Amino acid sequence: MKFGRFTLNSDNEIKQGVLTSDGVAEISGDIYSDWFYLGQTFSSEEVEWLAPIVPNQIIGIGANYVADKKDLPEEGPEMPVFFFKSLSSVIGPERDIVIPETIEEVKFESELAVVIGKEAKDIEEKDVLDYVFGYTIGNDVTAPQFFHKDGHWTLGKSFDTFTPLGPVIETNFDPAQARIQAFHNGTKKQDSPTYLMIVPIKRMISYLSKVMTLKAGDVILTGSPVGAEFLSEHDEVECKIKGIGSLENRVIRSKRKVNV
Amino acid sequence: MKFGRFTLNSDNEIKQGVLTSDGVAEISGDIYSDWFYLGQTFSSEEVEWLAPIVPNQIIGIGANYVADKKDLPEEGPEMPVFFFKSLSSVIGPERDIVIPETIEEVKFESELAVVIGKEAKDIEEKDVLDYVFGYTIGNDVTAPQFFHKDGHWTLGKSFDTFTPLGPVIETNFDPAQARIQAFHNGTKKQDSPTYLMIVPIKRMISYLSKVMTLKAGDVILTGSPVGAEFLSEHDEVECKIKGIGSLENRVIRSKRKVNV
Repeated sequence: MKFGRFTLNSDNEIKQGVLTSDGVAEISGDIYSDWFYLGQTFSSEEVEWLAPIVPNQIIGIGANYVADKKDLPEEGPEMPVFFFKSLSSVIGPERDIVIPETIEEVKFESELAVVIGKEAKDIEEKDVLDYVFGYTIGNDVTAPQFFHKDGHWTLGKSFDTFTPLGPVIETNFDPAQARIQAFHNGTKKQDSPTYLMIVPIKRMISYLSKVMTLKAGDVILTGSPVGAEFLSEHDEVECKIKGIGSLENRVIRSKRKVNV
Repeated sequence: MKFGRFTLNSDNEIKQGVLTSDGVAEISGDIYSDWFYLGQTFSSEEVEWLAPIVPNQIIGIGANYVADKKDLPEEGPEMPVFFFKSLSSVIGPERDIVIPETIEEVKFESELAVVIGKEAKDIEEKDVLDYVFGYTIGNDVTAPQFFHKDGHWTLGKSFDTFTPLGPVIETNFDPAQARIQAFHNGTKKQDSPTYLMIVPIKRMISYLSKVMTLKAGDVILTGSPVGAEFLSEHDEVECKIKGIGSLENRVIRSKRKVNV
């Protein structure tokens, strides 16, 4: 099932719904535990998708793809690079990625985003998928200028609008069979199967759950394939995963200033 | 005023209250906007304090104190080191800091914690305090073994129980006149005035607000004075700030394992 949040063109009330071939069926309740249909269905044309959830926290993993199967290391890194992104970085589909005046350029990074569905602590790899609610698409927008020279990525990943998410969360999806794509102004730039991940999803989430207790609504960005590029003003970026959908955003500039 | 969350010794219901010289007056509502007294007051002996809030996000700043006023740089760093901590790292006073089996040692770091009270975006330094709800004490427990060699601190700061907070949030407090202390098994190890911060609070929060929109419930750990040390099993650590209170925790070990 495809869960999303949306407004209608006619007003600003935030609604939840399930996307079907007949349109968007409105629901109410907690998507992780107990929800029900409200009886109304809207056509896709009426609907403006928002980010499909308000995350509890957003965790990313660094440098997690190789270009080719032969480049996969026999053993993954002992300690993967994890980072958090700010909650205010989240935007929905069709919303603008806003680059502050003092940043020269930002990168797009198309990623499969895992949405945790229930409390997960000390989970073994074989059990990880029991704790996953579903999958959406994330664009891990990044300003390398704001990577600290001592290695910290926090600022460069955390500007407002730097985490487009959506359009929907697909619960019926096999992450091992997925393909992650990105199109920059219509030209394909990223296109990798998920088996090129260095730290696979099960290992990644098992590892995290042994450090911190994950909760429903935690979003894990599973890394970006080779091919990410820099974006300029007015550029369009489409992150696409077959089976989930397309996440399209445009880039604009703001007068916001922050010292590098 | 001193706001806190607590349970009574007799049951597990989480209550909110204001600490006064007469005891703890129970309140209801949103401490940031609209709350009221419920009419009941409990004696301090009846009350077990929890972390005073459930944070929206937790942001720390790295290496932010000098030992002596003469060591203060004329200009702060252009880009401070910021990091996030996991939400599951929060515990209250008197709760145990739990060290997983595979971690040899952890450090305590006594810190003044700022609680944001309303949405803060692009705030100038002179206006920062208008966006602060109050101040509490944080212990930024840290496992340097889990600092990534490329500089990322995320894992080493984010283990469950690694952010004791409390006991209360003091709204009537001057952060410029404060003194941050820590006692390790009763011996004073940290004792610094806040004017030894390299990046002062106003600059820190103004800077952050130009990157990300802060929200009510965001907690900013403002850095730890010189003198932090390693903790062993059964050790007691007390973080103390006059005007706020004392945050005491003990260290225990768990069988939890995670590869370094």
